[in-house]
Amino acid sequence: MGRPGRHRPPLPLHLHRQTGSEDVVVKVLYCGICHTDIHQAKNHLGASKYPMVPGHEVVGEVVEVGPEVTKHSVGDVVGVGVIVGCCRECRPCKANIEQYCNKRIWSYNDVYTDGRPTQGGFASTMVVDQKFVVKIPAGLAPEQAAPLLCAGVTVYSPLKHFGLTAPGLRGGILGLGGVGHMGVKVAKAMGHHVTVISSSSKKRAEAMDHLGADAYLVSSDADAMAAAADSLDYIIDTVPVHHPMEPYLALLKLDGKHVLLGVIGEPLSFVSPMVMLGRKSITGSFIGSVDEAEEVLKFCVDKGLTSQIEVVKMGYVNEALERLERNDVRYRFVVDVAGSNIEEAAAEAPSN
Amino acid sequence: MGRPGRHRPPLPLHLHRQTGSEDVVVKVLYCGICHTDIHQAKNHLGASKYPMVPGHEVVGEVVEVGPEVTKHSVGDVVGVGVIVGCCRECRPCKANIEQYCNKRIWSYNDVYTDGRPTQGGFASTMVVDQKFVVKIPAGLAPEQAAPLLCAGVTVYSPLKHFGLTAPGLRGGILGLGGVGHMGVKVAKAMGHHVTVISSSSKKRAEAMDHLGADAYLVSSDADAMAAAADSLDYIIDTVPVHHPMEPYLALLKLDGKHVLLGVIGEPLSFVSPMVMLGRKSITGSFIGSVDEAEEVLKFCVDKGLTSQIEVVKMGYVNEALERLERNDVRYRFVVDVAGSNIEEAAAEAPSN
Repeated sequence: MGRPGRHRPPLPLHLHRQTGSEDVVVKVLYCGICHTDIHQAKNHLGASKYPMVPGHEVVGEVVEVGPEVTKHSVGDVVGVGVIVGCCRECRPCKANIEQYCNKRIWSYNDVYTDGRPTQGGFASTMVVDQKFVVKIPAGLAPEQAAPLLCAGVTVYSPLKHFGLTAPGLRGGILGLGGVGHMGVKVAKAMGHHVTVISSSSKKRAEAMDHLGADAYLVSSDADAMAAAADSLDYIIDTVPVHHPMEPYLALLKLDGKHVLLGVIGEPLSFVSPMVMLGRKSITGSFIGSVDEAEEVLKFCVDKGLTSQIEVVKMGYVNEALERLERNDVRYRFVVDVAGSNIEEAAAEAPSN
Repeated sequence: MGRPGRHRPPLPLHLHRQTGSEDVVVKVLYCGICHTDIHQAKNHLGASKYPMVPGHEVVGEVVEVGPEVTKHSVGDVVGVGVIVGCCRECRPCKANIEQYCNKRIWSYNDVYTDGRPTQGGFASTMVVDQKFVVKIPAGLAPEQAAPLLCAGVTVYSPLKHFGLTAPGLRGGILGLGGVGHMGVKVAKAMGHHVTVISSSSKKRAEAMDHLGADAYLVSSDADAMAAAADSLDYIIDTVPVHHPMEPYLALLKLDGKHVLLGVIGEPLSFVSPMVMLGRKSITGSFIGSVDEAEEVLKFCVDKGLTSQIEVVKMGYVNEALERLERNDVRYRFVVDVAGSNIEEAAAEAPSN
């Protein structure tokens, strides 16, 4: 899937490694912006190394393959997510849930097996081991596919793993950002009754009308919360900051599951009877595997499900990050990398 | 199973209800003492009503049955646990997990369907609906059976429900009291590798030599805790007071489960990456069903598993409660109710 007129010369080779025998060279077309990119770019987690090339919702075209590559061919449209390496020997790796490998290598701000820094999708090209490159199926626009590689698989993986895929289940989605909006869409496509739970009524129309949620619950409305007690099979909790657990635990049915997807450093708390007396679980999940990424892509094609995105050029990326930080996007920014003048944008960007 | 010479005249009938059509009148032989009995007797939970007849690990002999009783016959040795009533119409009731019915009726310190207080097993007789009366299988001494009706089923139920019964699993038991000691025994009988986790090394010999645990971990030993990281499929947490969660969550493998069995009013806390990055679950469980009580009794007979008890007379019950409160019992007091002079003990007891 060549895109005539959009091709730009790749970055000088010294910026990424030589193509290894199992490597795929991807010309980046689009790259989504995830909340984690803010944490990494701004060193919120205290482990950022610069210069950094963020971006882990990458869709591009294969422009070169190493001699041992069997999974992909030149011209394929492919995706790269959060992980580009793993040990391949531990229990999670052997179970093909390499996102839980303790030696996983992040797409960027990490060190690859060759000792060099990894670089993400805000670049003209990426070099990635074929194992971590997924095929984008026909019928899915590349810019639509980008958010599925992190946000989409992040909600799909726990629904599948925790046995929450049957039609008719009642789910709650807590937080309506990039991950939350995919949660509504994926859960609806599974045939669930979906309640969006929010701290205000601001997003009611969006949730109900645009995204197709079945119900909208404002967490400060004590009567509505009480009326919804004991009604949900699960809550997908995408809120990335501290919040109380108990109002939401109370919404769960017997055996209900509260699935945390947000990395929250401040302790969350609960009293034990809240879980014991309803055999409820507080659990969490972390992105998804390569296999699950391929599944969610296929699931979206099968269900005709699209992500809701705002496509921007690379020159707008700093403003996009600021807007994302104040949750001012419906619901995911996707950078048109191939359609941007990256070198120019880089030259214009303020230095850190 | 009459016990000649031990029979005492039943209490005056006005102390319990007339035998209903589905009621079983049980002459109490033995009754275990659970930590909850302290909470109830001393009004720790703020809902105690006096006079109170505690006791919910009851083993006795059927001395009378109502005309519709089909499950039990006069002369049967039977058990009664924590629950003596439920709505029979809700989802938990229909799934035979009536312990999670919101209208469950406790064996004592509750109000029965006839409006009268329920009374537990520290009495000569109990009248209980047949649904909540279990058969004590041949091969199990009645005093041995008593702790299985609460402590035993409380550990058995979550192991079964959460799919933790396969041989070879690695389990941790946190807290070595009445419930914890049954946890070691039941988990060992399932073929698990069992680690007792304690705040001190005081109970090491007991855990390893008497109860047959495979390992003993002192939670303040940072090196030992680090060496045991990522090693357990589950932790059965019987500690009934506030404690940190994170040192124990760190011991769990990917997909490991931390099962809370202790009612703790003070909030427990954790940071979300501790559960997300290993897809771990913090969950809990509450006693067990009548069906599961029958299962654990059969399980113990099949495995030749006994509880470790100290049998006392009713005249010793206040001292037993004090010793239990300071965890000075290995591991469960069982009151020889039929062998005690209850009226005399009652007359000697200090009034509240």
